[in-house]
Amino acid sequence: MPEDALERVSRHLAAQRAEGLAGLREFLGIPSVSALSAHQGDLRRAAGWLAARLTGAGLEHAAVLETGGHPAVYADWLHAPGRPTALVYGHYDVQPADPLELWTSPPFAAVERGGRLYARGAADDKGQVWMHLLAAEALLRTGGGLPLNLKFIIEGEEEIGSTHLPAFVEAQREPLAADVVVISDSGFYAPGLPAISYGLRGLCGLELTVRGPERDLHSGEYGGAVQNPAHALAELVAGLHDGQGRVAVPGFYDGVREPEAQERAALARLPFDEAAWCREAGVPEGFGEPGYSTLERCRLRPTVEVNGLWSGFLGEGSKTIVPAQAHAKLTCRLVPDQDPAQVLAAVRADLVRRCPPGVRAEITLREGSPATLVAPDSAYIRAAARALRRVFGVEPAFTRMGGSIGVVPAFTAVLGAPVVLMGFGLPQDHIHSPDESLDLGNYDGGQRAIAAYWLELGGQAGA
Amino acid sequence: MPEDALERVSRHLAAQRAEGLAGLREFLGIPSVSALSAHQGDLRRAAGWLAARLTGAGLEHAAVLETGGHPAVYADWLHAPGRPTALVYGHYDVQPADPLELWTSPPFAAVERGGRLYARGAADDKGQVWMHLLAAEALLRTGGGLPLNLKFIIEGEEEIGSTHLPAFVEAQREPLAADVVVISDSGFYAPGLPAISYGLRGLCGLELTVRGPERDLHSGEYGGAVQNPAHALAELVAGLHDGQGRVAVPGFYDGVREPEAQERAALARLPFDEAAWCREAGVPEGFGEPGYSTLERCRLRPTVEVNGLWSGFLGEGSKTIVPAQAHAKLTCRLVPDQDPAQVLAAVRADLVRRCPPGVRAEITLREGSPATLVAPDSAYIRAAARALRRVFGVEPAFTRMGGSIGVVPAFTAVLGAPVVLMGFGLPQDHIHSPDESLDLGNYDGGQRAIAAYWLELGGQAGA
Repeated sequence: MPEDALERVSRHLAAQRAEGLAGLREFLGIPSVSALSAHQGDLRRAAGWLAARLTGAGLEHAAVLETGGHPAVYADWLHAPGRPTALVYGHYDVQPADPLELWTSPPFAAVERGGRLYARGAADDKGQVWMHLLAAEALLRTGGGLPLNLKFIIEGEEEIGSTHLPAFVEAQREPLAADVVVISDSGFYAPGLPAISYGLRGLCGLELTVRGPERDLHSGEYGGAVQNPAHALAELVAGLHDGQGRVAVPGFYDGVREPEAQERAALARLPFDEAAWCREAGVPEGFGEPGYSTLERCRLRPTVEVNGLWSGFLGEGSKTIVPAQAHAKLTCRLVPDQDPAQVLAAVRADLVRRCPPGVRAEITLREGSPATLVAPDSAYIRAAARALRRVFGVEPAFTRMGGSIGVVPAFTAVLGAPVVLMGFGLPQDHIHSPDESLDLGNYDGGQRAIAAYWLELGGQAGA
Repeated sequence: MPEDALERVSRHLAAQRAEGLAGLREFLGIPSVSALSAHQGDLRRAAGWLAARLTGAGLEHAAVLETGGHPAVYADWLHAPGRPTALVYGHYDVQPADPLELWTSPPFAAVERGGRLYARGAADDKGQVWMHLLAAEALLRTGGGLPLNLKFIIEGEEEIGSTHLPAFVEAQREPLAADVVVISDSGFYAPGLPAISYGLRGLCGLELTVRGPERDLHSGEYGGAVQNPAHALAELVAGLHDGQGRVAVPGFYDGVREPEAQERAALARLPFDEAAWCREAGVPEGFGEPGYSTLERCRLRPTVEVNGLWSGFLGEGSKTIVPAQAHAKLTCRLVPDQDPAQVLAAVRADLVRRCPPGVRAEITLREGSPATLVAPDSAYIRAAARALRRVFGVEPAFTRMGGSIGVVPAFTAVLGAPVVLMGFGLPQDHIHSPDESLDLGNYDGGQRAIAAYWLELGGQAGA
């Protein structure tokens, strides 16, 4: 193993640290919020900026590619014949920043405080994409080349379900062909304990609109004699779960593959402090499906969650109306082997069946992606584990993660390549929340670990 | 009866119609939304404007009086010794105008279309206050004086529950003393069929906040393992009613005086077209407490209504979070003899008792006012009926109304005066809704009917 190569990379990264961070700050300064059409130009700007930076880092063929939605950024370096090819996937789009008033500093002006870099996208996922760019640059600058063939595909729609990417992957299967897909859009199990994820939950969603009166009605004139859409919505939402937190939608659990006993046992062996977890989440206690632990509930079990709801008058003071409409945004996290279309059909049928008289339910589906599992014992996973152990000094945890990366099933199905989920976030990062941040220790170590992984894969291929 | 006096008034009103409407348009142009603190200055502006106009109409002692909240406007004319004194109550504040996008024309730029004047407050209640001003002015200009003593008290907090007015009435019981309180803040039973209301529902309310995690959480990382405040809110709201629309809060119906059989029979004899009522409300069908008709549900029965609710992400697209909080605004319409404080205590206790684990419920009460009933057979009511019959040519209906006027119980208790609710709105006015408007036929007739009523009361006193 070329030990001195990693040392050279580490010295280079340390020497260039300020420049690297300045680049990341610039990247984080572009408000590339994929969910909001007002930011469409910012998405294009972020993509163009990233393509230029990939070129600047020494990668080739950098291009902003149309997908039908927000574009994807491609770049490669393919001068290691006989060595494996890795495809790095990440995303340059970010979650909406609101509620803005809960941010300590502005979400799109990255600020360092207490060893962390605060900004929307710092951990999810611009920061991790940037670590890959810096690791590749460091290898190119210090070794005259990369120890393997590398391709980047960085998309702009991950936070809205990767709508267009599966078809794009299908259409671009030749240029994207790789021996392994590496994704850094996840995190450590805990501070100091890196993790390799071998599973992701799937994701699908729907919007429910309950329509009642054609206009808001005076609650004195009409109250008590018409169905209130807000009441109907509450009834529909409340009925999605039983009182214990189990999903009550008929058919929802059809197709769920129960986690194996050994998997549950492995999860139970991981260090876990329930009180600390509750403090970190800011909740008085955990709550969820009976018969499963907190870790199992958020990694191995499917959910239905309301992400937002609204009806009637939201302003200051009071307005005595029966609202005309009520709305809810729902998403489901899926586990193997649930089918997103079947789950959405079951939820829709349940809502339609339970819709009370006097109102009508309109439902818009957002098809998503199924859960994925990868074999935890492939050579690519073992090499990743060696790289992480080398840099962070501990054996990484192998777990399924609770989040979702919409394109992973397409990578598996279309490219036929194993997916390695090796991420550098921490539970403390507050991704999707106000004050998202990235631990700068993990940022530094992550760049070295990525370089170590490429060196592992290159050495392995040459063995 | 001084028939020629009313004819003179009618001629004067017809001759001055354009000037009268121009004044009302000016009044409606002041966005005196009492619920929104940003409009505090507009409330003061509307009060000052009205006081000046009352003086201009020939009334005396016009003053903007402090109440502790938005001020009240007073004026009088007290030169009819030996004749009765009527106190006219109304309000110059209006409901919020949103959702603004549903207005055909801007809410604070009154526009005439198809025999109606469209603006927030056109019917509720600026238009009706203005009709009283014009009627008094016409009597003063055509007869050299009023046939009775008249006092105006026009407040600025009716739409927010008349918070400060009961204490103000208590403190000002001498200056406000009257033989009868006349309120035009209600409407006809139907087009062409005037009504005198002998009862009002009471009103009280509360705001419910369900607090869960300290921040919005990533639904992939935490979903399924923490209580979702939006789910908890839905459960709490859904449980306020049974599936049939009856309020399910223990103790809620305690104290409700069941309507008498003869009252129900009288209500059943009024012309009522259920299909037309549903069309007017814009609902596919009525819905409410079993065992009561549509008219009974909205006039004789108490309610709990959600006026607004919200949680989490309300924007375009999706944001995969477990929201930190969820909120609901609730009001109850009360009937005799429910006690607002007891009702609020019952609702609060029910919400607290049913609050699911993992979240906490915070409840803010908005104490309101109880329902009121006045005897439908007083001399003041009979005189009002004669005035309405004389102008509109039909016998008015005697009904309870479903709405609430917060200060009425204080008038009854403190001033000891009977309250006559004689209003000129129509069910088509869309009060509290977008496109509120006032029927200009009722506007013209209402001014004559008010003048006729003063002439009736003056003649009666002289008889």
